[in-house]
Amino acid sequence: MNEKIKKNLERLKELNIDMFGKDFLLTWDKTDDEIEATVLFTEILNEMHKNNISTKVFDSGIAVPIFRDNSTRTRFSFTSACNALGLGMQDLDEKKSQIAHGETVRETANMISFLADVIGIRDDLYIEEGLKYQKEVASALDFGYGEELLHQRPTVISLQSDVDHPTQSISDLSKIKDYFGGLENLKGKKLVMSWGYSPSYGKPLSVAQGMIGLLSRYGMDVVLAHPKGYNVMDSVLEVAKENSKKSGGTFTVTHDMKEAFKDADVVCPKSWASYSVMEQRRDLLHAQDFDGLDALEKACLLENKEHVSWEYTKEIENLTNNALYMHPLPADVTGLNCEHGEVSREVFDANLKETYHQASFKPFAIMSMIWLSKFKNPIAKVEELLEKNTPRLNK
Amino acid sequence: MNEKIKKNLERLKELNIDMFGKDFLLTWDKTDDEIEATVLFTEILNEMHKNNISTKVFDSGIAVPIFRDNSTRTRFSFTSACNALGLGMQDLDEKKSQIAHGETVRETANMISFLADVIGIRDDLYIEEGLKYQKEVASALDFGYGEELLHQRPTVISLQSDVDHPTQSISDLSKIKDYFGGLENLKGKKLVMSWGYSPSYGKPLSVAQGMIGLLSRYGMDVVLAHPKGYNVMDSVLEVAKENSKKSGGTFTVTHDMKEAFKDADVVCPKSWASYSVMEQRRDLLHAQDFDGLDALEKACLLENKEHVSWEYTKEIENLTNNALYMHPLPADVTGLNCEHGEVSREVFDANLKETYHQASFKPFAIMSMIWLSKFKNPIAKVEELLEKNTPRLNK
Amino acid sequence: MNEKIKKNLERLKELNIDMFGKDFLLTWDKTDDEIEATVLFTEILNEMHKNNISTKVFDSGIAVPIFRDNSTRTRFSFTSACNALGLGMQDLDEKKSQIAHGETVRETANMISFLADVIGIRDDLYIEEGLKYQKEVASALDFGYGEELLHQRPTVISLQSDVDHPTQSISDLSKIKDYFGGLENLKGKKLVMSWGYSPSYGKPLSVAQGMIGLLSRYGMDVVLAHPKGYNVMDSVLEVAKENSKKSGGTFTVTHDMKEAFKDADVVCPKSWASYSVMEQRRDLLHAQDFDGLDALEKACLLENKEHVSWEYTKEIENLTNNALYMHPLPADVTGLNCEHGEVSREVFDANLKETYHQASFKPFAIMSMIWLSKFKNPIAKVEELLEKNTPRLNK
Repeated sequence: MNEKIKKNLERLKELNIDMFGKDFLLTWDKTDDEIEATVLFTEILNEMHKNNISTKVFDSGIAVPIFRDNSTRTRFSFTSACNALGLGMQDLDEKKSQIAHGETVRETANMISFLADVIGIRDDLYIEEGLKYQKEVASALDFGYGEELLHQRPTVISLQSDVDHPTQSISDLSKIKDYFGGLENLKGKKLVMSWGYSPSYGKPLSVAQGMIGLLSRYGMDVVLAHPKGYNVMDSVLEVAKENSKKSGGTFTVTHDMKEAFKDADVVCPKSWASYSVMEQRRDLLHAQDFDGLDALEKACLLENKEHVSWEYTKEIENLTNNALYMHPLPADVTGLNCEHGEVSREVFDANLKETYHQASFKPFAIMSMIWLSKFKNPIAKVEELLEKNTPRLNK
Repeated sequence: MNEKIKKNLERLKELNIDMFGKDFLLTWDKTDDEIEATVLFTEILNEMHKNNISTKVFDSGIAVPIFRDNSTRTRFSFTSACNALGLGMQDLDEKKSQIAHGETVRETANMISFLADVIGIRDDLYIEEGLKYQKEVASALDFGYGEELLHQRPTVISLQSDVDHPTQSISDLSKIKDYFGGLENLKGKKLVMSWGYSPSYGKPLSVAQGMIGLLSRYGMDVVLAHPKGYNVMDSVLEVAKENSKKSGGTFTVTHDMKEAFKDADVVCPKSWASYSVMEQRRDLLHAQDFDGLDALEKACLLENKEHVSWEYTKEIENLTNNALYMHPLPADVTGLNCEHGEVSREVFDANLKETYHQASFKPFAIMSMIWLSKFKNPIAKVEELLEKNTPRLNK
Repeated sequence: MNEKIKKNLERLKELNIDMFGKDFLLTWDKTDDEIEATVLFTEILNEMHKNNISTKVFDSGIAVPIFRDNSTRTRFSFTSACNALGLGMQDLDEKKSQIAHGETVRETANMISFLADVIGIRDDLYIEEGLKYQKEVASALDFGYGEELLHQRPTVISLQSDVDHPTQSISDLSKIKDYFGGLENLKGKKLVMSWGYSPSYGKPLSVAQGMIGLLSRYGMDVVLAHPKGYNVMDSVLEVAKENSKKSGGTFTVTHDMKEAFKDADVVCPKSWASYSVMEQRRDLLHAQDFDGLDALEKACLLENKEHVSWEYTKEIENLTNNALYMHPLPADVTGLNCEHGEVSREVFDANLKETYHQASFKPFAIMSMIWLSKFKNPIAKVEELLEKNTPRLNK
C-alpha cells in the first residue's frame, strides 16, 4: 500500500470523529479531529486518483449543484468530485424554479431530493443570507427524511456562503500542510490574510473569513490586514480569536500593510468588499435598484482606488520570510488582466505552480466531505477500495 | 424478498401486457392491464430504491430531455429516473438547434439518437401541437430505426403535452392506490378534479385531462368541476365518459363548486386556462405578438378574478368525506405565495406530507415506463436484479 | 467474433501508429496509417455498439465540451461518445468563466482538468484564432501535466476550428470507405467539394478544408469548386496539393460549377464564407461593432445572391457519375427551409438515408480518437472487451 495512504489511515484511527450523516457548512462547526480527518481523506483520495485507483462508491444517484453566483473552479471541482464517487449531476437552475421564494424552499428542496445524495450550494452574494439559505435547505431535508418522504438524507455541502468557504479553506489547509510537511509544523508560523487592491467591487468576504476561521486552529500567528472600513464579520473575528487562544497562537487585525507582511511565512493577498458595502448591495439587489447599484459600484471603486498601494509586489515579498504565496484564483494581476491589481505579475508568475497546486486539492476536499458524511466507517471503506484496487482507467 | 415486491411480481404474472418497444404518450393508449403493470413497477422500483438495491441496467447510453416549457420537478424526476437506470443525460436546447422548424424534426430527432435510449418531451404550451410534436419525433425515430440508421429505437416518454400528463397521472394513481390500499378499493369512491382560482393564466389543461382520462378507469364517481368557459378538450371528455361506462363508474361535469366537493373522497383543486384562451395564446405566440399576449393576459386575469371564490378552504374541505387533498405542485397558496389562490394555507399545510408523498412517485413512474419499454420480460429482469442484490451505496 | 471487427483488427496489426497521449486537432498531423487506424476503430466501435457490446473503459472521469459556437450534432456526438466510454460531462460555459481572456487560458485549462480525461473544443467563428486557441489549451495542459499538477493529461479533440473539422472529415471518410467497399477502391474516383448557395453568411471554411485536406490522400481526383472570391486558406490548399501528389491523385480548383461536377463519384455541395469576409467579421466581432456586422451581412448576402445558381439540382446530378451526395447537415434545402439553397429538395430527399448514415459515424469517430490517445495498446484493449462481451443493455 502507498506509504502516504498507510500513514494517513493510521493517524485517522487515532481521531475521534462524528461526521456520519452531517452537512459541511462551516469549518467551525467541526472539531479539530474532524478537520484533520477531512484533510487526511482529502490526501488519501488525491493519492488514490493519482495512482489510478477507483473511488467509485455510488452505483447511481444524483448530486445537485445550486449556484447562486457564477463559478468555474468550484463547479468543476464539485462535478469532478461527485463523478469520481459515481454520482450523476442535475443542476438546479433557480431562474427556472420557485426555490428563490423563501416560502417554498422546503418544497423545492424535497422535490429535487427523492434520488439525490448530495446538494452543493454556493450563495455568497447576499450578506447575512447565504448561510441562512443553506441551513434552510438542510432543515427542509431533515423534515423530508424525518417524515420518510425521502429514502436518504442528501448531504449539504457549502460551496461558499456569505460567512465561510469551507471547500476553499480545507484546500488551503491541505496545501499549507503539504508545504510545511505536517500540521504539527505550523505552530509559530506567521500567516497573513490581507486585503488586496482590485479594480472591481463586491467580492465576497468569505474567503478571508474562511481562512482566519480555520487557520487560527494551529498555533500560528494569524494576521488579518486591511484598510480601514474593509472589516469582516464580527462573529468570525470571534471564532479566530477563540481558536488562537485555544491553540496557543495569536490573532491580530492591522491596517498597516507592510507591518502585516513582515516576516510572514504564508500570505494570501486577496480583495473583498466591506461588510457595509455588501449590506447596501444586498438591499439594492433585493429592490432591483439598478441605478443605485451603479452608483454604489462607482463609489466603491473610487474608495478602492485610495488603496491601490495594497498590491503584493516583489518589494513587499522581500519583507516576508520567503513566504508561500496563496490565492484561490482567479487573481487580479497587475499588467496581466488589469492595470493595477492584488499582485504584481512578477510575483504571480513566480508562484504559478504553487497556486495551481493549492487549487488541485479542492475536488478531493469535496470528495472527502461527502465520504465522511456517507460512511459510518469511512476508514474501512477506503481500505475496502484499496483492497479491490479497481483501476479507474485500465490502460 | 420484500413482501410488497413479491406480491406485485405475483400480480404482474397475471397481467397481459404488450409494452416492449412502445412509447408512453397517452394513458388511454394503454390497456387496464398495462396501466396496472406501470403502477406495479412504479412501486417495485420505489421499494428497491428504498431498500438500497441497484436498479442499474444500462452500462452506458444517453437520455435526452426536451423541455419546451420550464420545469423543475419533472426535470429532476426524469434525470433521477434515467440516472438510476444507468443512463447519462444530454439536454436538447432547442434555442441552439433546428428542431423547432417542423421541416427538420425528422432530421434532428435522428441526429440526437445514434446512442440514445430514451427521449423525454415536455411540450404543453401550444394547444393542439404538443402531442403532435411528440408523435412526429416518435415517427422520425421509427424511420431511422426501420432504415437501420439507428442501432436502437429510443423510447419516447411524454413529460406533459397539451393533451395528457401521463407521468403525473401515473404518480397520482400510485398515490391514490397507496392511500386506499389497492385499486380494487377505488370502486364507488368520489374523485373531484376541480378548477381552482390562480392569479396567473395560461396553465396547461393536461393535468386535469390526465386525471380524468386515467382515474375514470376504476369505477369511481369522477367529477370535473370548473366555472363556465374553462372547458377542457372534447376528445378527453369522451375518453373519461367511455372509461366510466366500462368500469361501472360515473363521469360528471359541473360548474357548481360546492356541489362538486360534497362527499368527495379525493380532490384535486388546480388552476388551468380555458381551451379558447390557449388557442388565442398559441396564435399570438406564433405571431410573436407580445402586445397581444399582454392584452390577453390582462383579460384572462380579469376573467379569472370573477372566480376567486374557487379556493379550496377548510370550509369546502368540511363538505367532503375527509377527502385526500392532491396537487401536482407547486400550488398557489393563499397567504403563502399569493394573496388569493387555489387553496388556503391552512388546508395546504395540513396536507403537506400527502402532496410530497404524491410527488415522490414520479421518478419511479418514469423508470417504470422505461423499464416496460426496454425489457421483453420486465418481470424476469427485476427478479434478476433482486437476486443479485447489488447495493446502490454500500455503506 | 464479428467478421468485420476481426478483419479490422487484422489490418490494424499491420499499421504503424504513434497516437498514445496525442491530441487530435488536424488530420494532416497524422500519418496515413494513423488516419486508417482512426477509421478502423470508428468501424469497430460502431459494430460493438450495434452488437450491444459494452465499450465502457473509464470507471469515472469527466469530459469537458467547450463550444464557442452553437452546435447540436457535434455536441450530441461528443456526449454520446464520452458516455459510451464511461465519462461524465461538465460543460465549460465561457460566459461564466475567465477563459475567453487570452491571458488566462493556461489557468482555466488547468483548473478544469484535475479530474478530466478529454477536452473537446469547437472554435470556428474567428478565422486564424480557433486552432490557435485549441493549441494554447493543449500547451497549457502540457505545462500542468509536466509539472505534475495534473495526474493525467486530458486529450484535446478538435470539434471544429477555423482550419479543420477532423471529427467530420473522419466520419466522411468512413462513409466513403463504406460506400465504395474499402479505401483501396477510392483511387481514380472523382470527389467534388463544392461551394453551394445559401441565404446566410459566415459559415466556417473548415468543412471544405477538412474534406480536401483529408480526401486528397487516396489517389482521387479531388476538385474544389467555388465562385471567385470564395477561396479557402492557402495553407490547406498546399496540404491538398501535397497529399494528391504523394497519393497519385490530382487536386484542382475551379470556378466552373458544371465542369466541376461532370463525372463526379462523390459530391459535397456546401456553403461557406470567403476568407476575407471571415477576417472582416472577426475584426468586427472583436470590436463589438454590431452596425458594422449588420452592414457586412447585408453586403455578403447580396454578393451570395449573385451565385444563386450554385444549387445542386437533379440537372446537375445528371452530369455526375451517379455520385454519392454528402452533406454534414443541416443543409439549406430549396423549398424545405429556404427559398433557394445548396440543394434541391428532390435531390436532398432522395439521399436522406445516405446523409443520415454519414452522420451516424461521428460519435464513433470521436470515440476512436479518444481510444487511440488513451491506450498504449488500443488493439489489445478492444480484444479484452470483446472477450468480456459485457452487454450494454442486458435485455
